[in-house]
Amino acid sequence: MTRQELIHLIRTKRSFLCVGLDSDITKIPQHLLDCEDPVFEFNRQIIDATLPYTVAYKPNLAFYESRGLKGWQSLERTMDYLADKRTEVFTIADAKRGDIGNTSEQYAKAFLEGMNFDSVTVAPYMGEDSVSPFLKVQNKWIILLALTSNKGAFDFQLNQVTAADGTPLGLLFEHVLRTSAKWGNTDNMMYVVGATQAEKLTEVRAIVPDHFLLIPGVGAQGGSLQEVARYGMNQDCGILVNSSRNIIFAGSGTDFAQAAKQAAKETRDEMDILLKARGI
Amino acid sequence: MTRQELIHLIRTKRSFLCVGLDSDITKIPQHLLDCEDPVFEFNRQIIDATLPYTVAYKPNLAFYESRGLKGWQSLERTMDYLADKRTEVFTIADAKRGDIGNTSEQYAKAFLEGMNFDSVTVAPYMGEDSVSPFLKVQNKWIILLALTSNKGAFDFQLNQVTAADGTPLGLLFEHVLRTSAKWGNTDNMMYVVGATQAEKLTEVRAIVPDHFLLIPGVGAQGGSLQEVARYGMNQDCGILVNSSRNIIFAGSGTDFAQAAKQAAKETRDEMDILLKARGI
Repeated sequence: MTRQELIHLIRTKRSFLCVGLDSDITKIPQHLLDCEDPVFEFNRQIIDATLPYTVAYKPNLAFYESRGLKGWQSLERTMDYLADKRTEVFTIADAKRGDIGNTSEQYAKAFLEGMNFDSVTVAPYMGEDSVSPFLKVQNKWIILLALTSNKGAFDFQLNQVTAADGTPLGLLFEHVLRTSAKWGNTDNMMYVVGATQAEKLTEVRAIVPDHFLLIPGVGAQGGSLQEVARYGMNQDCGILVNSSRNIIFAGSGTDFAQAAKQAAKETRDEMDILLKARGI
Repeated sequence: MTRQELIHLIRTKRSFLCVGLDSDITKIPQHLLDCEDPVFEFNRQIIDATLPYTVAYKPNLAFYESRGLKGWQSLERTMDYLADKRTEVFTIADAKRGDIGNTSEQYAKAFLEGMNFDSVTVAPYMGEDSVSPFLKVQNKWIILLALTSNKGAFDFQLNQVTAADGTPLGLLFEHVLRTSAKWGNTDNMMYVVGATQAEKLTEVRAIVPDHFLLIPGVGAQGGSLQEVARYGMNQDCGILVNSSRNIIFAGSGTDFAQAAKQAAKETRDEMDILLKARGI
């Protein structure tokens, strides 16, 4: 999906909601456990219920890998199910990969080609040659970790960094933004910036005014949608706000899909207001 | 496997060789492609041939994930095959994972429990709570990225960092070592330090004298075994040196396993000399 197509989706659906498919088999409704593939069945019903209000789905790979072969199968089935909805929704493999060049090439193949995700999340620690293989795949995106929503973000991401000659380079996450923005462009790179540090979005926007940002941490982790929109939105909207548990586990009975639909619709309605306030 | 058991293996086999199972299906011998699971068959023969000279096997997850379900199956079969050899060899899931706490828990489950690897490689960018879930699994290890062997290591890992109050914290990889060493101990944490910057091992050893180090980059990437041993070895040996392509693709015909055996044996013989020189 191109940037223009994504912006069109946001304008049409009046939403910048990304639904995180953290489909933990221990948390899905009991009655699904009799299905041949309970996690796929859960995802299918969640997708059917929330698609009108959702611009992106983001399966969190860990919840699939932890179930081995069966989990991988649930993920492949979910992507197959989304295959004929590719113009209706953006897809994100939340994999946080990153390795030396020939290895990153294989990860790019796994997610952007094999499973045909629109994008994959990537960790920046290993630098340019760990990221660039993902950028070689046409019409696909990487979403690079910049400032994450967890407590551990304070361990390294907020350290001041300087070059070998003493030149100040800002905080580590700012240096990551500034450096990596040269590796790709606004048509193939986004950044992860956590909602739990919404005021930092001002600094992020000073460095990457035009890039899309994927923003986790609203809801269960404590971030606020209004604050994220205030500090993070640009003229194209420019943000995808992720919600996982608040949507997919809104209900836990046989009406779980209806509850997810309601939660997604309420979020969309809030987002519509925030979009209108920006003239979008 | 415990630290003492690993040290015992090194002393007995006279080797600190880790064989990287980067088993790229496009590079394995042609005649294996007729097997039901060519990559597993390749791994099985490589393991049989090299086990006497090898203290660790390290499947590189990317080469399995890039083949989807089939790749995941080859990996599971390889780990099943190693199940009755668990006292003879240490296993490393080279996955470079790392995410918020509840997600890292799932990755820990996938690799340390589900597939029963002894260890998993983890990226440090997201800080303590992304790493600590792996450390909760008894008798297992994480191997944290510190200084990698690729060109991109220069992008961030070698930046000078300072605390918010201006206190100098050294280079980023040194700060990662110093900070993370408090999260675990020498019985459950190792570090990745690339051989391509062998002289940096002196600085690494000043910070973590007793931790095991996993050292990639000898051979194909240009690092030297002698230099790595000189700067990185400690009184327990304390290093695992990875070799992938130089061993597993030493031959490309029907005699590939024999060629791998010869390459592993030659490396072991060199390592034996280096161990003896250290009185191990």
